[in-house]
Amino acid sequence: MVASAFLPELWTEILIPVCAVVGIVFSLFQWFIVSRVRVSADQGASSSSGGANNGKNGYGDYLIEEEEGVNDQSVVAKCAEIQTAISEGATSFLFTEYRYVGVFMVIFAAIIFVFLGSVEGFSTENKPCTYDDTKTCKPALATAAFSTIAFILGAVTSVLSGFLGMKIATYANARTTLEARKGVGKAFIVAFRSGAVMGFLLAASGLLVLYITINVFKIYYGEDWEGLFEAITGYGLGGSSMALFGRVGGGIYTKAADVGADLVGKIERNIPEDDPRNPAVIADNVGDNVGDIAGMGSDLFGSYAEASCAALVVASISSFGINHDFTAMCYPLLISSMGILVCLITTLFATDFFEIKAVKEIEPALKNQLIISTVIMTVGIAIVSYVGLPSSFTIFNFGAQKVVKNWQLFLCVCVGLWAGLIIGFVTEYYTSNAYSPVQDVADSCRTGAATNVIFGLALGYKSVIIPIFAIAISIFVSFSFAAMYGVAVAALGMLSTIATGLAIDAYGPISDNAGGIAEMVGMSHRIRERTDALDAAGNTTAAIGKGFAIGSAALVSLALFGAFVSRAGVHTVDVLTPKVIIGLLVGAMLPYWFSAMTMKSVGSAALKMVEEVRRQFNTIPGLMEGTAKPDYATCVKISTDASIKEMIPPGCLVMLTPLIVGFFFGVETLSGVLAGSLVSGVQIAISASNTGGAWDNAKKYIEAGVSEHAKSLGPKGSEPHKAAVIGDTIGDPLKDTSGPSLNILIKLMAVESLVFAPFFATHGGILFKYL
Amino acid sequence: MVASAFLPELWTEILIPVCAVVGIVFSLFQWFIVSRVRVSADQGASSSSGGANNGKNGYGDYLIEEEEGVNDQSVVAKCAEIQTAISEGATSFLFTEYRYVGVFMVIFAAIIFVFLGSVEGFSTENKPCTYDDTKTCKPALATAAFSTIAFILGAVTSVLSGFLGMKIATYANARTTLEARKGVGKAFIVAFRSGAVMGFLLAASGLLVLYITINVFKIYYGEDWEGLFEAITGYGLGGSSMALFGRVGGGIYTKAADVGADLVGKIERNIPEDDPRNPAVIADNVGDNVGDIAGMGSDLFGSYAEASCAALVVASISSFGINHDFTAMCYPLLISSMGILVCLITTLFATDFFEIKAVKEIEPALKNQLIISTVIMTVGIAIVSYVGLPSSFTIFNFGAQKVVKNWQLFLCVCVGLWAGLIIGFVTEYYTSNAYSPVQDVADSCRTGAATNVIFGLALGYKSVIIPIFAIAISIFVSFSFAAMYGVAVAALGMLSTIATGLAIDAYGPISDNAGGIAEMVGMSHRIRERTDALDAAGNTTAAIGKGFAIGSAALVSLALFGAFVSRAGVHTVDVLTPKVIIGLLVGAMLPYWFSAMTMKSVGSAALKMVEEVRRQFNTIPGLMEGTAKPDYATCVKISTDASIKEMIPPGCLVMLTPLIVGFFFGVETLSGVLAGSLVSGVQIAISASNTGGAWDNAKKYIEAGVSEHAKSLGPKGSEPHKAAVIGDTIGDPLKDTSGPSLNILIKLMAVESLVFAPFFATHGGILFKYL
Repeated sequence: MVASAFLPELWTEILIPVCAVVGIVFSLFQWFIVSRVRVSADQGASSSSGGANNGKNGYGDYLIEEEEGVNDQSVVAKCAEIQTAISEGATSFLFTEYRYVGVFMVIFAAIIFVFLGSVEGFSTENKPCTYDDTKTCKPALATAAFSTIAFILGAVTSVLSGFLGMKIATYANARTTLEARKGVGKAFIVAFRSGAVMGFLLAASGLLVLYITINVFKIYYGEDWEGLFEAITGYGLGGSSMALFGRVGGGIYTKAADVGADLVGKIERNIPEDDPRNPAVIADNVGDNVGDIAGMGSDLFGSYAEASCAALVVASISSFGINHDFTAMCYPLLISSMGILVCLITTLFATDFFEIKAVKEIEPALKNQLIISTVIMTVGIAIVSYVGLPSSFTIFNFGAQKVVKNWQLFLCVCVGLWAGLIIGFVTEYYTSNAYSPVQDVADSCRTGAATNVIFGLALGYKSVIIPIFAIAISIFVSFSFAAMYGVAVAALGMLSTIATGLAIDAYGPISDNAGGIAEMVGMSHRIRERTDALDAAGNTTAAIGKGFAIGSAALVSLALFGAFVSRAGVHTVDVLTPKVIIGLLVGAMLPYWFSAMTMKSVGSAALKMVEEVRRQFNTIPGLMEGTAKPDYATCVKISTDASIKEMIPPGCLVMLTPLIVGFFFGVETLSGVLAGSLVSGVQIAISASNTGGAWDNAKKYIEAGVSEHAKSLGPKGSEPHKAAVIGDTIGDPLKDTSGPSLNILIKLMAVESLVFAPFFATHGGILFKYL
Repeated sequence: MVASAFLPELWTEILIPVCAVVGIVFSLFQWFIVSRVRVSADQGASSSSGGANNGKNGYGDYLIEEEEGVNDQSVVAKCAEIQTAISEGATSFLFTEYRYVGVFMVIFAAIIFVFLGSVEGFSTENKPCTYDDTKTCKPALATAAFSTIAFILGAVTSVLSGFLGMKIATYANARTTLEARKGVGKAFIVAFRSGAVMGFLLAASGLLVLYITINVFKIYYGEDWEGLFEAITGYGLGGSSMALFGRVGGGIYTKAADVGADLVGKIERNIPEDDPRNPAVIADNVGDNVGDIAGMGSDLFGSYAEASCAALVVASISSFGINHDFTAMCYPLLISSMGILVCLITTLFATDFFEIKAVKEIEPALKNQLIISTVIMTVGIAIVSYVGLPSSFTIFNFGAQKVVKNWQLFLCVCVGLWAGLIIGFVTEYYTSNAYSPVQDVADSCRTGAATNVIFGLALGYKSVIIPIFAIAISIFVSFSFAAMYGVAVAALGMLSTIATGLAIDAYGPISDNAGGIAEMVGMSHRIRERTDALDAAGNTTAAIGKGFAIGSAALVSLALFGAFVSRAGVHTVDVLTPKVIIGLLVGAMLPYWFSAMTMKSVGSAALKMVEEVRRQFNTIPGLMEGTAKPDYATCVKISTDASIKEMIPPGCLVMLTPLIVGFFFGVETLSGVLAGSLVSGVQIAISASNTGGAWDNAKKYIEAGVSEHAKSLGPKGSEPHKAAVIGDTIGDPLKDTSGPSLNILIKLMAVESLVFAPFFATHGGILFKYL
């Protein structure tokens, strides 16, 4: 008799949904606190808006409340108006996007059903199981049907994650602006709490839906866990394919607007960022919400769903899968449940245990969130590994069996978790203007835009080194201990603190929007300085968030790749065979092809935006003087149309490649393609997002002019500043469109291959069969 | 009895050196014709300078001879003076570089000897052969000694190739300028003939030295061909390691000067390129010769040497290696011999059979060179394959034997040759301003530098697609037919027309220099227009040359990788093992690390140059007015010092990585590193060099203003033109430093691993042994 986990099955069945519900309740509670900042004509409740902090009044610059006119009704009304415009723009874009994506989803669901159903010629007979032919498993047709359902569930959850995130962000932006009048600390808390709403909602609902799906599917599958968890992988595919469109569509939207607005506004007309006279300003602010918030929400949800699915499908053929030890089987979900509790405690450190009194405390506060969550989570993982796993079990390692101890699996999860922290810190070092790399880039602006770009590109390339070593070490440790199951749980470890990660990540665009609103309603210089400080920290946290997303994507896709290979019945992926090496080479090329498409799309859409903005400045009399209002709606429409149109080709590239390669060239070449795109894509993704982040913060460094060095480069409008603006503009599509989409590319191709593996194994490689 | 080749051994022994000597004689003959253009006070011979073309006088604008004052002695004297300055600067830099590199060479030669000698504990006893233990082979100590000698020979040949190329180019540049007074056709011929001098000299001497080395080593090795050709691989390593320093050092030199000169001269002071008032102008022109000429010469020599060595070492364990069929064994050398003859005929098409009468004929003439050489070479390969190979033979395929027919090997060589042509044409399409991609990039300059950079990067990424497919198909075909031997001969096929490739490649920098000299001596606008036209075509051919270099590097390094794996006794390189996958990931990162170093080096060196040039403009009275001479020597010194200092870290990265990985982590991880750097490096290399080429030609497109569209963007000094100049400056380090060095990175790590394979197999992987 093999030992089973310490935690009884009933407890597992109770604990997981309880943790998920706790996460959702906590999220709603944060939302309630944020909602107490009123954005309406009735300003009465505003003075009590600080929630729990209200009684303290300890903020250094609390007294400017009066000076800025907290009770000025017209400012509040204006804020409300702009907030509504942004929210409506974002909602309308997302609805348009989802309409197109919905069509795709239906078609793809049909493809999944037909392709997977065809594996056994749509037979409804039960069959002997693949890994244990003494048992009977459900027919391929059932897997086809349930995979399709899981796919749709994943897609819908992903869409909801993105949509709700956007709703929260557009709810919070004006509130942050209003709170900024009272002090930087109050504004920070509002932005951060709103980020937490999104983080917890997403982490908890992802877990809950997955948990319910497993339990419902189990009713049909019964003892056939192999089939059950194969079908569950559709959840990951659904989540990730929506994330692709969200990231690419949203990314093109936001950067077309941003680049277009900057090129005419800042460079040609010399008006500040977010100036209400700029016709593209609303589109720009909408973009932050649909790209950085909704896109990122879908993306991280996708990673989370895929990591869980990869771990589950690999585990289903391990000893506890075969022995039906439900608690051990649910180990990935238990990790995520523990993550929610840990992040909850971590959040209190930012919102209740300490308070931000000055600008310079913002970045450390956000960094501490990462450290605290990682440290507590380490303990959490130890507990889960002790109670949730048998002390020793065997897993399947490409044909061989491998014995794993529970402490080894604990180390696998930990190495992923800590690698995430290292990647986060390295990203911070290379993108925050508190350190020398960004300051060097800013300094190179002295000699113009060309040196700025050269230094920025070099910085991005260099920033790849340590993260790659961190990922490589995680892979080596986890792979050596527990093969692909180890890699999958390492990815889960990195994603276990996702709620905190998302909170600090979503905080960035909310602050950015808050600054935009402050500028648009014509608040004073001091308010804008505060929101800018929040925003600069937000740029760094955004880069950190992308670092996490990319690092976890690398681990996730390797785990998925491993699962695919097992499921497709491939035993070795030998580089020294022609089929694999050409796959590797072409796979390594795909991120370039994809980036070429997305960069070009942003460029073309930005050009259209530029023409429209120029046209408005030239034809609307009184626009520059501020006496006439620009036509914001046309700019919103240009961004919407361009992004919908342009997201289709890169989307097809990613979605069709595994199908084409698998069908025509077979599983060996497809394995090569997956490995190639993984090792090449992760590098471009990291360098692109860090280069972009560094340029953005180099510009902010010059603008803020805090040090002597920074002052010597500024002020706004100086030649070095102009060079910095050019760098920032180039970085926009790199850091917000191409870079972050690439991690979806590598994950999605892997999960798609995994879902279609039985089909490729049966019908794939027709080109080589008939040649 | 196995069939042997049709061509008797004696004939092979005669034919190879004869072809090499023919190549050298042809090269000297071309040099003689170029030398008839006099650059001295005695102008008497100038009118007969056209050589064989002299009697024709058919050039459309022949009559401007008088107008431009062909007999103006002062112009000639000035040209001679500048030529001397450039030549002296280049010579002095190369001597400094070679002094440092010489020290490295001695140290590395010692490492080779000690490491390889240690394999059998410095035993002097003969031992049973690895692949046939009934025979006796020479001791490892002999292989160590002969590998060291071959390494030194390869290094010296590489250095000589680069140095002679530079000498020829600096000999030809002023002559091209002087001939440009008589017409664009005459100038073209001088530049092209000089390129041919370099191409033939390099191809022929590379072949000859290799041939002699084999024959001399054979005296010692006798029947032990396995040891003989293992020792010969040192030749490839020597050639390629010198190429690395040549490319990196020269690349940093040339771009520091170029970027520095442009930033102050063109952007700040608004003076034209190559204006004699610019203190960095001589350094810039020196740079073209040490970077683009000497660096590229060493690079392509390295590729050639490595491809030959890879083919030979793989063949040594094939059936004809074991049966000692010398003709079949020398098949790679026969291909190269045939290549020299084919290129000789091809050259005549440009120099004698047709003549260039107008600017628009330049690019087609150069393109035709590629097509003609490829078509004739196809026939040549067929002949060589028929007479030089047995109709059927077996080769070694990672433990298994594989039967290959001679027509299959013919197809392997052809697929490489034709893939090279396709890569050349795709490169031309993406970098020539005659086609829409570059025109689109130029058009994006309307909205400033940022969109120019975004479009340029996208273009570079996109330009990777077709070349990668071409390389993948070549690999698939050649690998399927003849395993690694097929891949090696496919690489040789791509390099078989190297003499023509180098001729059109070297033509570019010569024309660039010629334009510089025309500007510096103050020749008229018309002359400058002609040299600019030559130069624009040269930019494209330079990009084509880089495309060839990268494509062949990919094939060569795969072949070397295969040879390494065989020699190290690895049977599979399975991506699904932790050791390999981490190698793959880290290997894919290395090109980024390397690029970060080289880009940053160029940036820093350029900043120093900018400061010096600004200092001179500010402190030397009368410099801007042209009444005082700048201090050229200080700028030359800055470039020299910077490049020598900065070439060491990237050089160490490339040279030490295989040693460290092999010694500490073992051959599996090293295999992963090689495969990873190959598949990732080739992409960055192609995209970097095409992006840079496209930006350069987009700028030239605007400057030339030939079409309505181009005119609407210009003239020089307009806002779009300024944006284009920024793009061009960013592209400089990409296309001339990072990009072209990367193909050396991938080849060099592979050949180094191959040379050290027995050491790693015996003593490597100590970290895993003791952990």
